[in-house]
Amino acid sequence: MLQTKLLLYIIVPIVSAMTAAPKVTYWRGRGRVEPLRCILAAAGVEFENVFLTRKEDLQELRASGKLEYDQVPLVEIDGLNLVQGLPTAYYLAQKSGLLPSSPVELYLVGQIYVAAQDARAPFLQYPFNNLPDPPSLEKVLAAAEQSPKGLVQRYCPKWETQLAKTNGPFFLEGETTTNRPSLADIGVFEVLDFYRHITSEDRLRVTFASFPKLLQMHDAVLELGRIKHWRDVERPKVFLDWHDYAKSVCATLS
Amino acid sequence: MLQTKLLLYIIVPIVSAMTAAPKVTYWRGRGRVEPLRCILAAAGVEFENVFLTRKEDLQELRASGKLEYDQVPLVEIDGLNLVQGLPTAYYLAQKSGLLPSSPVELYLVGQIYVAAQDARAPFLQYPFNNLPDPPSLEKVLAAAEQSPKGLVQRYCPKWETQLAKTNGPFFLEGETTTNRPSLADIGVFEVLDFYRHITSEDRLRVTFASFPKLLQMHDAVLELGRIKHWRDVERPKVFLDWHDYAKSVCATLS
Repeated sequence: MLQTKLLLYIIVPIVSAMTAAPKVTYWRGRGRVEPLRCILAAAGVEFENVFLTRKEDLQELRASGKLEYDQVPLVEIDGLNLVQGLPTAYYLAQKSGLLPSSPVELYLVGQIYVAAQDARAPFLQYPFNNLPDPPSLEKVLAAAEQSPKGLVQRYCPKWETQLAKTNGPFFLEGETTTNRPSLADIGVFEVLDFYRHITSEDRLRVTFASFPKLLQMHDAVLELGRIKHWRDVERPKVFLDWHDYAKSVCATLS
Repeated sequence: MLQTKLLLYIIVPIVSAMTAAPKVTYWRGRGRVEPLRCILAAAGVEFENVFLTRKEDLQELRASGKLEYDQVPLVEIDGLNLVQGLPTAYYLAQKSGLLPSSPVELYLVGQIYVAAQDARAPFLQYPFNNLPDPPSLEKVLAAAEQSPKGLVQRYCPKWETQLAKTNGPFFLEGETTTNRPSLADIGVFEVLDFYRHITSEDRLRVTFASFPKLLQMHDAVLELGRIKHWRDVERPKVFLDWHDYAKSVCATLS
């Protein structure tokens, strides 16, 4: 009897750590966490979303000790509490075979992913860019399309050139004939998907028509794992609209 | 004769790529590049500093095509032009044995390094925080010491706890008895060294007296490679004072 009990105590935590779906904690919108959700979805991983809705949610989370620096996003996976965006992206990508190990390829993938995070800064601000009124589409599109430091003018030409080197659809060359998807593709996909999310599929195709390899990469990433299902089926069910999302973030943080 | 010439043509570029010292391009101060200089110095690597002083320097650099996203710092090494801070830090650390390969350790090192970059944000702003007048020491110390989101209150307690787990002096446990230095140690060292740089050795010891393991780590990093030589001998010769540095950055970018 004692032996059975002991066995239960030992086995239960191990099994639960191995089989529990990762838990992603954030507000009901894209924010800083959507690239991480896309990595999990592209890797085919089912994950649970935990949404912050009340001020107490964040207070309780901070009190739990899970937030190393008191900030979300939080990704709970493999018994770890991952809290810093970029190292978390590397962790999820590495566990899913989406992170190369050689220094040169790791740098290439990292610099494209980090540049994608820079390029999405105006999108990250979009829900908040006209508070207390609803967000200004004009303002975010000016930053993304017209600014020499924005997505279309600074980043897309570089990425298109990079994809031309491998002939696409992905940034990393394969060891045989097929090129390999990586964190770099997911990061850039997510920025294009953000643009599409605030505009439309039609406008995505028109705006990026002069970057055919980027669009080809976007479409290839959409075929990975569960990412199309996340985008088209799951996400629309759980996200707030942009203005309500911004109000909910502010209310929780105030 | 023809053969000799051919041999020369083939050998020269290879040898120069292997033996050329890395070139670090930035202004004459710490800015966004000092963590990268510290990684190279801790790894014992001699590097050449190229300083931006005239507006034309940046224009010429952009025209050269070496800046993937038109931004410095630039680190030229192994025939590559590295331009994004964090992926560059990973590259330099990986080539120097300062980056672990397992996902859990890579996450730990990455999150500490990224947190150190967050913690140094007020220091990064310090030279510019009172323009056109000389910088305000009071303002930067308030952000670092008094703010609940600053270095002393948010970050140091977490890092001290983390170092207590390995019993120091470094964040990663060793495979035998000695713990291993990594990118995490260099990143946190650099923030403490920034604090020391704008204040004094005495004030460093007083402010961080309640974090003995952090100070122990600081001192252990100072023994690595050429880092003490860089700090005490080379850097003072080439850096501008804070106010002149800020003016020089503004003049180049205007």
